[in-house]
Amino acid sequence: MSSPSAAMDSVRRIEIIGIGLGSPDHLTGQAVAAMREVDVFLVADKGEVKSELVELRRAVCERYLEPGSYRFVTVADPERGPDAERDRAAYREGVDAWHAARAKAYADVIAALPPETVVGFLVWGDPAFYDSTIRIVDAVATYLPVQRRVYAGLSAVQVLAAEHGIVLNGIGQAIHVTTGRRLASEWRPDLGTVVVMLDGSLHCRELMEREPELVIHWGANLGLPSQQLRSGRLADVIDEITDVRAQVRAEHGWVMDAYALSLPESRDGTHQNRV
Amino acid sequence: MSSPSAAMDSVRRIEIIGIGLGSPDHLTGQAVAAMREVDVFLVADKGEVKSELVELRRAVCERYLEPGSYRFVTVADPERGPDAERDRAAYREGVDAWHAARAKAYADVIAALPPETVVGFLVWGDPAFYDSTIRIVDAVATYLPVQRRVYAGLSAVQVLAAEHGIVLNGIGQAIHVTTGRRLASEWRPDLGTVVVMLDGSLHCRELMEREPELVIHWGANLGLPSQQLRSGRLADVIDEITDVRAQVRAEHGWVMDAYALSLPESRDGTHQNRV
Repeated sequence: MSSPSAAMDSVRRIEIIGIGLGSPDHLTGQAVAAMREVDVFLVADKGEVKSELVELRRAVCERYLEPGSYRFVTVADPERGPDAERDRAAYREGVDAWHAARAKAYADVIAALPPETVVGFLVWGDPAFYDSTIRIVDAVATYLPVQRRVYAGLSAVQVLAAEHGIVLNGIGQAIHVTTGRRLASEWRPDLGTVVVMLDGSLHCRELMEREPELVIHWGANLGLPSQQLRSGRLADVIDEITDVRAQVRAEHGWVMDAYALSLPESRDGTHQNRV
Repeated sequence: MSSPSAAMDSVRRIEIIGIGLGSPDHLTGQAVAAMREVDVFLVADKGEVKSELVELRRAVCERYLEPGSYRFVTVADPERGPDAERDRAAYREGVDAWHAARAKAYADVIAALPPETVVGFLVWGDPAFYDSTIRIVDAVATYLPVQRRVYAGLSAVQVLAAEHGIVLNGIGQAIHVTTGRRLASEWRPDLGTVVVMLDGSLHCRELMEREPELVIHWGANLGLPSQQLRSGRLADVIDEITDVRAQVRAEHGWVMDAYALSLPESRDGTHQNRV
């Protein structure tokens, strides 16, 4: 029997589990084993448009877990203003405030659970790539003691490459993973293949004039039945990609996409796809 | 009943399967399903020092597959000269010639199998990251018709991050994956977190004077019982990492490692691990 103060001081076990991109077949054995330890999965309530993503998490659990051995607890997501037009400093401030509010909301929910409860977060893709869960759990740890473990999951970077059947690096070359926001200012041939995440606006258009030979490998809703793939010379396929992206969003209420940009021959004379 | 010429023309099915880093728990459900389709796994015979890696692949198969439902065929690996001291052009030429010889060896072995045989390659890590299997299979396809499919696997990049429990990107920042060979010449603060693969010589030493505040997260034999992790300010921990790396190699005959380099604060004033 724990007293309230013992409950407050108990170390809470938190499993941060990468689940890949929605297909139950993306899960690793260690991710499934970690899920089986979890009593309560915390999910952010992002409102109607993302409800299909919550449903996909439920489907993953139903595939691998015994009914009744776990439950989902929805945590209301704090409001987050539109950020597309903000400058970088304002964007960072907004992200920081939003993460802090979110962490407090999670800490309140966790503190109200019995102290022996194992808490799980099912992270889309890989927790190490453009996901805020680890940072949020570290912020939760400022409110109550936490023991966390992270399990890698297939990221969009990898599933994009696998579905297209491509190697990301040219031989002896680098791979650069970045955001749509950064792409136009940082793109250079010697970055190697550039993979772009979190780009709601297909910023790659801005590179077409400067680098007319750029090749794109694009994918939306990777791993799901609604997956779409397109590839080709950027200038030749960008209009089709823009249309397909809009169609996927119209049909499902959301779209998640990523793309890789490469030059058919890198500037030091090597061929990216040469044997 | 196929005639010899029909056998020559039959499309050969090849599954290129990322298996993660040696732990059977790293495999995804789709990787296991693909393995179950395979009749013959081709493995390169790299000689004694890498035999533990072949044994780990066998252990993965024994965990998931019915005995007698598959077999391993070893393909002699062509000789590859030492490349540490070569310049880039000579390095590229050597890699090209080695891949071509390897592809011919695989094509000969595949051509000798019954045409309906499903051939599998079990790829360490992810086939899209610093692995030659896709390129070799594409070269095999110049000798006989091939239908290939690629399955992503956990890469060293991801398992390194998960075992250390870190997010690779700073908020809104990039991730750069590169080789030891390229590191010193291409490192810049605005690349974001830099993950280094294929570095037998810990080239990060060359950055210590220039960037005394660099932080390293290093891991060897990630996911295996012999895993070693170290992290800290590069200048503080590099000697220990060098020693541990040598110990792992002495004990196992080989070592595979990767590391991430980041600045505690990136140069635009953002904190990499800030919430």
